[in-house]
Amino acid sequence: MIVVMRASATQQNVDTVLRRLAEYELKGHLSRGEERTIIGVVGAAIPPTLQEELELFEGVQETVRVTRPYKLAAREFHPHDTVVDVRGVKVGGGAFVVIAGPCAVESEAQILTTARAAREAGAAMLRGGAFKPRSSPYTFRGLGEPGLQLLAQARAETGLPIVTEVMTPTDVALVARYADVLQIGARNMQNYQLLEEVGRSGMPTLLKRGLSATIEEWLLSAEYIIAQGNPNVILCERGIRTFETATRNTMDLNAVALVKRRSHLPIIADPSHGTGKWYLVPPMAIASIGAGADGLIMEIHPDPDRAQSDGGQSLTLENFAALMPRIAAVAGTLGRKMA
Amino acid sequence: MIVVMRASATQQNVDTVLRRLAEYELKGHLSRGEERTIIGVVGAAIPPTLQEELELFEGVQETVRVTRPYKLAAREFHPHDTVVDVRGVKVGGGAFVVIAGPCAVESEAQILTTARAAREAGAAMLRGGAFKPRSSPYTFRGLGEPGLQLLAQARAETGLPIVTEVMTPTDVALVARYADVLQIGARNMQNYQLLEEVGRSGMPTLLKRGLSATIEEWLLSAEYIIAQGNPNVILCERGIRTFETATRNTMDLNAVALVKRRSHLPIIADPSHGTGKWYLVPPMAIASIGAGADGLIMEIHPDPDRAQSDGGQSLTLENFAALMPRIAAVAGTLGRKMA
Amino acid sequence: MIVVMRASATQQNVDTVLRRLAEYELKGHLSRGEERTIIGVVGAAIPPTLQEELELFEGVQETVRVTRPYKLAAREFHPHDTVVDVRGVKVGGGAFVVIAGPCAVESEAQILTTARAAREAGAAMLRGGAFKPRSSPYTFRGLGEPGLQLLAQARAETGLPIVTEVMTPTDVALVARYADVLQIGARNMQNYQLLEEVGRSGMPTLLKRGLSATIEEWLLSAEYIIAQGNPNVILCERGIRTFETATRNTMDLNAVALVKRRSHLPIIADPSHGTGKWYLVPPMAIASIGAGADGLIMEIHPDPDRAQSDGGQSLTLENFAALMPRIAAVAGTLGRKMA
Amino acid sequence: MIVVMRASATQQNVDTVLRRLAEYELKGHLSRGEERTIIGVVGAAIPPTLQEELELFEGVQETVRVTRPYKLAAREFHPHDTVVDVRGVKVGGGAFVVIAGPCAVESEAQILTTARAAREAGAAMLRGGAFKPRSSPYTFRGLGEPGLQLLAQARAETGLPIVTEVMTPTDVALVARYADVLQIGARNMQNYQLLEEVGRSGMPTLLKRGLSATIEEWLLSAEYIIAQGNPNVILCERGIRTFETATRNTMDLNAVALVKRRSHLPIIADPSHGTGKWYLVPPMAIASIGAGADGLIMEIHPDPDRAQSDGGQSLTLENFAALMPRIAAVAGTLGRKMA
Repeated sequence: MIVVMRASATQQNVDTVLRRLAEYELKGHLSRGEERTIIGVVGAAIPPTLQEELELFEGVQETVRVTRPYKLAAREFHPHDTVVDVRGVKVGGGAFVVIAGPCAVESEAQILTTARAAREAGAAMLRGGAFKPRSSPYTFRGLGEPGLQLLAQARAETGLPIVTEVMTPTDVALVARYADVLQIGARNMQNYQLLEEVGRSGMPTLLKRGLSATIEEWLLSAEYIIAQGNPNVILCERGIRTFETATRNTMDLNAVALVKRRSHLPIIADPSHGTGKWYLVPPMAIASIGAGADGLIMEIHPDPDRAQSDGGQSLTLENFAALMPRIAAVAGTLGRKMA
Repeated sequence: MIVVMRASATQQNVDTVLRRLAEYELKGHLSRGEERTIIGVVGAAIPPTLQEELELFEGVQETVRVTRPYKLAAREFHPHDTVVDVRGVKVGGGAFVVIAGPCAVESEAQILTTARAAREAGAAMLRGGAFKPRSSPYTFRGLGEPGLQLLAQARAETGLPIVTEVMTPTDVALVARYADVLQIGARNMQNYQLLEEVGRSGMPTLLKRGLSATIEEWLLSAEYIIAQGNPNVILCERGIRTFETATRNTMDLNAVALVKRRSHLPIIADPSHGTGKWYLVPPMAIASIGAGADGLIMEIHPDPDRAQSDGGQSLTLENFAALMPRIAAVAGTLGRKMA
Repeated sequence: MIVVMRASATQQNVDTVLRRLAEYELKGHLSRGEERTIIGVVGAAIPPTLQEELELFEGVQETVRVTRPYKLAAREFHPHDTVVDVRGVKVGGGAFVVIAGPCAVESEAQILTTARAAREAGAAMLRGGAFKPRSSPYTFRGLGEPGLQLLAQARAETGLPIVTEVMTPTDVALVARYADVLQIGARNMQNYQLLEEVGRSGMPTLLKRGLSATIEEWLLSAEYIIAQGNPNVILCERGIRTFETATRNTMDLNAVALVKRRSHLPIIADPSHGTGKWYLVPPMAIASIGAGADGLIMEIHPDPDRAQSDGGQSLTLENFAALMPRIAAVAGTLGRKMA
Repeated sequence: MIVVMRASATQQNVDTVLRRLAEYELKGHLSRGEERTIIGVVGAAIPPTLQEELELFEGVQETVRVTRPYKLAAREFHPHDTVVDVRGVKVGGGAFVVIAGPCAVESEAQILTTARAAREAGAAMLRGGAFKPRSSPYTFRGLGEPGLQLLAQARAETGLPIVTEVMTPTDVALVARYADVLQIGARNMQNYQLLEEVGRSGMPTLLKRGLSATIEEWLLSAEYIIAQGNPNVILCERGIRTFETATRNTMDLNAVALVKRRSHLPIIADPSHGTGKWYLVPPMAIASIGAGADGLIMEIHPDPDRAQSDGGQSLTLENFAALMPRIAAVAGTLGRKMA
């Protein structure tokens, strides 16, 4: 940490800072410039509150953190890519994985038709929601456990591992009985009890980025899961909230490219939520490969205009089948093999 | 709802829309303009998915919702101000209420000293966190139930009702045993299980606005609570996330003024989180009164530079005592009486 | 400036940085921590490109600037409030000034009626646009020079000084012949040729904040004007662009409170553009006084529903007259005298 | 346009709206629903101010525009792709064009070395700034006309057409004497006099998106240029401003995909400004092809760590040469031929 003193700071102000550092067994290295003095803080264990504390001291202009607050998720200390193994499907480490399925499980016919089409077209996993977070209390919120049972039935028939959302800590055990990957939705990215419960489960976890979460906050949420002894975290960029309203969200592919440098965790992209419009999904799916994503998660539906949620951003099964060869071709050109 | 057809839409496209409306026992009123046709949808119960459905129809350019999606929270159907009664302290309906206390309960001495100073200066309630949501897993996360016990002790001594956060549905019963007002934090504004559990508790609830929540989403979250039969919702503006980094958040006082028109619920303002800097708290506290807030919630601490969290945005007890007469004076000028 | 080295940086990496500093006659003070080394850069004149340069060096994690990039606008080096004198009306330094008038000058009757009502109600200056920046090329763009002449006529009759916008460097001389304060609109906050031309004119200048300008960028734009020898800059907060769409802009009163600390320049607030809705103007006008603004600029119109622009955010003359005593009362309570 | 009446609106309120419409020779088609009445406005020429006017009427809840405000830039009325011809290089219509060069022209050696390397690697045009908009008045602002002369010299030697920025209307004639494409920078996207002057010049124009401009505002700015009789507009996505600070801007590739549907104009992407970090340029360049861009503009420099501006986001000539074959391969896979 660095403490920047004001131009008007006195020697006494500087000494007060140094004394507080000494209380924590830290040292301060002084750099005296023409205009102001800078104090570099050196020591083994800087308490997390120190930064805010020192900002209150007289004569202090600001403090600057120089280490990233996450460790377990950082590539700096773990240079090799983490590979998450989901029933034999490898996420991260070079392969390219496509996850597809409806926003919500609605019926046996719907999920089985979709699962077969997904497998046929080359998807490696099946997604589908049984518990749905919805902004309004008056909309469809998922089938609950019967939805999970339908997902398990679809897996039994197609062999595709299942990705499904869990919304609250007390549901983790239930959902984990059926799912292969637990999904943490965007609205729950900072639901810390949920993160820790999922961490304790040891299950592969898909951690969606919050609607207004910085990349640093997102990696800190991953840190919560890993800190419970569960390294199987797959990050998922799904669009952030900005001033632009012509699309549902703004898909931040910069984040995909940057996370690949900052973290060893695999990261996939969700062009369905990222754009909110089915006709933007194909170009943004292809774009995601270019940005370096390890895979895609996409909403597909046999009859989007009758879907109980997210119909407007779901591909038809035909459009999905037409898109997959283009995805494979671009991935191949970039040296990625489809999982 | 209104369906706007493309300039290029055919009569057949229009007919297909009308047939789908008829399936739902809805009527479509046509307005044929020079350039395009508009269909006004009329009927008793428009299904929540209809909008997204119709956007997928050939020839449809867009659909526009014309009713607000919340009802119970809307002033349109409940013109009179809701007044939430917290152990005799009235929130809403004209009085001006100040809630003060530390970010987190840290010790008996800390909370008692603060509670006495709060009462002395004219605060009507005491705030303090026993369960703290924190971005990093490595920071102080509150004392838990012992913290709640200390809050109850402070109430016993000062008579001030207690406002404290609950983070997860399974903790609602525990926190409700000690608290007078349950606080839903910004990160949990869309934690729907928590909203419903708090709704079922019937307890007065302080619902903070999410960091990137629109006013409409915020009122929909209030709707979740009210729909469980609990009308005692107090809204709290605490700053939103924008591009500006010179302040911790951007305090959106427009939202305070607008919510007073759109909703009958009381709304208070939190200039501590809204600014993130203690020296901006006094001006923004005064500004909040002008914007029409029904009260303030502020962080105060006997020794901010030793606080275990949010020290940088906490007022000292002295600064708080100096601020209160100015708050009372401006409230008085605007015809508001201090609760 | 501070250079933060990576954990993996070698001694050679550090030496390369020090050599580059030496080329610029700068010194580097090393602080070696447990995990990484920090280099404090010390010297008289740090070149503006140095920060970006050093970020490209091997072993450098990031660089951190520790001085603010503006000097002339900074309170640190000019502790006393600047007071801008506009034909005897003082802006800054304690008084509270209200500027009112229509968005655009439309006719002699419209501007004279408005000017008389503004003076009557206690406004200290008259605003009105003769050159209007408009998003669409198909909307009314102002009367041009005849509009300036009408403003001059209104000043002759009422004695109110005139504030009006100038949009392009070649118009500065023309507008300066009629106006008392040149307004730089939000879209032109970073039109540097315009800033410099206005700077050279020496005229009092109202510098609106850009729609997505940080406070630092805004003060740097003020610096452009002052650097031409014109210290008569009045800042104006008029709302920023965020994700919220229920209001036209998000009025950032935090910025008003913060600018009062960071800069010696006067700052006023524009609740008309800040909210975009006439019924939010009164509460946000009052809020602005609380936040510490030195004044207000508001749109008023004799017949808003016939206005050629911004009717939706204009107060009627009656509503303005009713608001002014409340403004004066709150300003008085806070120890401010109306200009 | 649609007028949505409040639930509480009276018949008299509706009649008042209809009368105003009649004044403009417009008709109102009524749709009376269970809860409220909707009025569809029909007629040849709806005045641009009508929407704001009607929102002020008693009983009106809101108004909704149903046509896009731009016509000349809209694909709806011009289904075929516009192809801009720059000295024989075609932009739009299927080919993929790469523009490369330094942020600013610094010296003869620098621009000639860069131009040769750009041509060698397969770039189709050369970029370079002679007039540079800079946030701070204390940084390098370009060589001016001598910089333009160096660009012309580079074109003479390499045959590459020149793209360079013009910042103010009075410089258009000067810059047009040397340049093949006039660039409008992000800060000037709503500098309407500049747009119109560039429109009158008839020159191919690269119109960068403003930092916080919506897609609609951007297309309206294109409309300003086309309305002067100049259809040769190339749009350029260069990143928008959001809450994320880990990257300089947030590159909005959704906008690229959406603009291809909404407009017939060619659109290219700028991953240098879009990311602000040289190491994110290659993945985001590839991503841009996937999103459907018609080309790329990238900053390259022989010695980025000595660059006078934007060194941190410039590729070395070697990195650029290594990137180009990957761009060509992915473009080829997607059926695009390099210009």
